[in-house]
Amino acid sequence: MKTVFIKGLGLIGSSLARAIRKEHPNYQIIASDIDQEALQYAVDHQIIDVAVHDFGRINTADFIILASPVSQIISDIKVLAQQQLKPGVIVTDVGSTKQTVMQTAEVLRDKGISFVGGHPMAGSHLSGVRAGDADLVKDHYYFLMTEARVGDLQRVKNLLNGTHAKWLELAPAKHDQLVAQISHLPHIIAAELVNQAHQTCGSQLNVAAGGFKSVTRIAASDPTMWSAILLNNKQPILHQLDDYILRLTRVKDLIEKEDKQKLFDLFAHARQTRRKLDEE
Amino acid sequence: MKTVFIKGLGLIGSSLARAIRKEHPNYQIIASDIDQEALQYAVDHQIIDVAVHDFGRINTADFIILASPVSQIISDIKVLAQQQLKPGVIVTDVGSTKQTVMQTAEVLRDKGISFVGGHPMAGSHLSGVRAGDADLVKDHYYFLMTEARVGDLQRVKNLLNGTHAKWLELAPAKHDQLVAQISHLPHIIAAELVNQAHQTCGSQLNVAAGGFKSVTRIAASDPTMWSAILLNNKQPILHQLDDYILRLTRVKDLIEKEDKQKLFDLFAHARQTRRKLDEE
Repeated sequence: MKTVFIKGLGLIGSSLARAIRKEHPNYQIIASDIDQEALQYAVDHQIIDVAVHDFGRINTADFIILASPVSQIISDIKVLAQQQLKPGVIVTDVGSTKQTVMQTAEVLRDKGISFVGGHPMAGSHLSGVRAGDADLVKDHYYFLMTEARVGDLQRVKNLLNGTHAKWLELAPAKHDQLVAQISHLPHIIAAELVNQAHQTCGSQLNVAAGGFKSVTRIAASDPTMWSAILLNNKQPILHQLDDYILRLTRVKDLIEKEDKQKLFDLFAHARQTRRKLDEE
Repeated sequence: MKTVFIKGLGLIGSSLARAIRKEHPNYQIIASDIDQEALQYAVDHQIIDVAVHDFGRINTADFIILASPVSQIISDIKVLAQQQLKPGVIVTDVGSTKQTVMQTAEVLRDKGISFVGGHPMAGSHLSGVRAGDADLVKDHYYFLMTEARVGDLQRVKNLLNGTHAKWLELAPAKHDQLVAQISHLPHIIAAELVNQAHQTCGSQLNVAAGGFKSVTRIAASDPTMWSAILLNNKQPILHQLDDYILRLTRVKDLIEKEDKQKLFDLFAHARQTRRKLDEE
């Protein structure tokens, strides 16, 4: 019997709790959350066994999962470094950026505490404990940072086996560039397209067809989380955003010059790449 | 009994044929297409009654629907102006931009021939006669240009009643700005995001989750059609694209300055607008 401590029972934290429960029904799950109602919901629905305040009973945990937004994870890591933890404990996190987290986690390693940086790629415009799902990450990628002790990566994978995620081990810098491109930049793009369309069309925005709705679906995501992510992964995002603006400026030039061939090539290349993505 | 002539049996043309067939089973449908196989498919599946070449039998038509890409519609209008047409005929089109079409259609009006500019907003990444569907435009907006004779707008609506579209009458300039914003710009945005991601991530692009797939779904659209649309609606698209680049540049500044409040406001505003769109 192992004890798992989860800090933060939002969409991700509560989904991992559900997946652990399914795979390891004999494990004890302790959790805390600043939202008392969410915590009570999790107890009532047997998603967790014990609700505590902050890091209560943390010294009983064999696994500690930090499942708050990145800025909170960073301060939680610093607090954990001051606690008396169980020997052999593994600390892991689900933060959506990894360089700042891994740098902060040095304080744990300095004390001989294992830390495995993680990030489940479970895009959803929903949030909160009620939206959690044992299968949230199923068939999606779950990144684990290569900077970890031998054996610890495997122990985290075993713990979270019930998620049925696809594991991918990456260096933190490579991870942050990848998510800036395929997750963070798309959120900026979608949000600003919605804001512009609102200004241009006003109430006529309701004529928008499925294409517009699909492009902008993620613009309904949690603003607190996304404004924080932008600052937590500042440099990689700025780099990709800069390059993207240059690309749009180039398209503008092609339209101005009426370069039909190059515009065709642009759409043809995108179609080919996008179709491959559906075949995976 | 009325006779309807459809030029172009792609996704839109064949969908309208199917909807007319359903609503007016006694109407005769004549059609032509440069793709002989598509035409044969339409005859074999009783989507149309008679296949002709180019504008064959055009003098028997009570309604003429031009359902090719915009550049072809423009040259078709010029050809029609030279033909002997049935008195009282109504010509309509489905072109995705309207200012150039309406200007060209002056040659028909000068001869006393009714022209009703139309545009069904049926976003689909599919194409061709096989993908057609009587319900393609159902519950979507179908724009009709206000520049039309009294009574003609209603006759077109009656003809296409089986589409169950939501009709919206607009001036051509307003229409072109609206579609530049909610349809054309999103296609540019999605295509370039895919192209950039391909360059940044290479084969690791397959880690992309549902969010990225949703944003870029329309990047799989037909490159021939989309490169043509960009040039047919050049000025409104350039205007919106320019404004969009400015917006992204402003976001870049906010990230650089770490202005969390303004970034939050941006995402919060987008979320509010986007959620309303789902409630419609």
